[in-house]
Amino acid sequence: MIPRDHPRYRSLVARERLARCAREGVVALEGLAAHGRGEAFDYLIGEKTTRSAALAERTAAAMLLSARHAVISVNGNTAALAAAEIAALQRASGADIEVNLFHRTEERMEQIIRLLTEHGARVLSGNAERIVPLSHDRALSLPEGIGDADLVLVPLEDGDRCAALRKMGKTVITIDLNPLSRTARTANLTIVDEVTRAIPAITAACTTLEPGEGERLIASLDNTYLLRAAIDEMRENLSHALE
Amino acid sequence: MIPRDHPRYRSLVARERLARCAREGVVALEGLAAHGRGEAFDYLIGEKTTRSAALAERTAAAMLLSARHAVISVNGNTAALAAAEIAALQRASGADIEVNLFHRTEERMEQIIRLLTEHGARVLSGNAERIVPLSHDRALSLPEGIGDADLVLVPLEDGDRCAALRKMGKTVITIDLNPLSRTARTANLTIVDEVTRAIPAITAACTTLEPGEGERLIASLDNTYLLRAAIDEMRENLSHALE
Repeated sequence: MIPRDHPRYRSLVARERLARCAREGVVALEGLAAHGRGEAFDYLIGEKTTRSAALAERTAAAMLLSARHAVISVNGNTAALAAAEIAALQRASGADIEVNLFHRTEERMEQIIRLLTEHGARVLSGNAERIVPLSHDRALSLPEGIGDADLVLVPLEDGDRCAALRKMGKTVITIDLNPLSRTARTANLTIVDEVTRAIPAITAACTTLEPGEGERLIASLDNTYLLRAAIDEMRENLSHALE
Repeated sequence: MIPRDHPRYRSLVARERLARCAREGVVALEGLAAHGRGEAFDYLIGEKTTRSAALAERTAAAMLLSARHAVISVNGNTAALAAAEIAALQRASGADIEVNLFHRTEERMEQIIRLLTEHGARVLSGNAERIVPLSHDRALSLPEGIGDADLVLVPLEDGDRCAALRKMGKTVITIDLNPLSRTARTANLTIVDEVTRAIPAITAACTTLEPGEGERLIASLDNTYLLRAAIDEMRENLSHALE
């Protein structure tokens, strides 16, 4: 058991949950390494929601609420870490949820849909078709889900999928702790924050946006500024690291 | 297959090898996440041996060669990534090799000793005793190995073990891509470099040190300077990242 007062309690609990989900098959082995990369960048931003990330999360809420058809694309890591948080965001935003996996098998699809459903999410199901311009099974998506969406929220996504969705004309919001990744730089809006902090923050913003605030946030969105702010935060934390 | 001319070829090959070794049991699931953290920091130093890391590697060679009894402590990730490189370093330095695992089972111990042996390493074996001041099985070490060593090289080690070895009066050299980690800050000498670049560099230095160079390197060792140089490299790379 990890003591609750451990300074890195949340991070250690998340790591344990991921390893457990990898044993059960929900999380791919490659997902564990990806999580470790995220941990390193989270450490560098101070394991907290920065001011610029909070602005990005509020902007994400505005975009989700004003979309014609918003879809949250969930992979194994997101389901393992934040199934309940995803379900709450769905209730607050009205977005659809679709499961999309890099390492896709029918068994993993079912496991992840079950995990999300147990936590109160309603998950789209149906016959996936080759919709997204990606190789292999990564092309598979639901015509009535991502196929129809104008906006897709893709937490913890791979760079290829993000670029492919942009190429399809979708607006893409991503949650990615690495501000240098291709995903971070390809998305329309990048939230540089840890997924279990970011998703509840978007959910909270969905119910607290003031009249006109959403339009103002969307009009002033500057993703390069947001990425630059995250990088500056990391540089600043590094410079004090040995003190 | 990853194309050889892919700019991140070495990194992608290492990641694949780790996932394969995790399936076989050599690498612990927690080791995959740890590798991911390392990848993130390696990305930040530019996936190359920096000047300060090269200095650290040359200093490590001098320390290994002048030790009364040097032991290389190998864990699952190190064996998976660098079994042949460890064997070559043993030949060049005369150091002993002992396997020490965070997640220790007899089966994993045997698998890792076999992997190292297949790559030409001679691995100490015998009856492990509770030697290192750590909880559980992590205390287990060989009296004729780490128990007797004046210097221990611990690539990719956990912070607790590094501190415990220092408390026993051992000189500790570590290879750790995170210059902020407890291990990095506790060791006498920290090599901030990727393990498959670092170990061959130490091996090469063992045969190319000039007369008197080793003594000079050891006398001028300043680990805080080495950590600071690695951090500065990361800050610099971050500042150019969006260009």
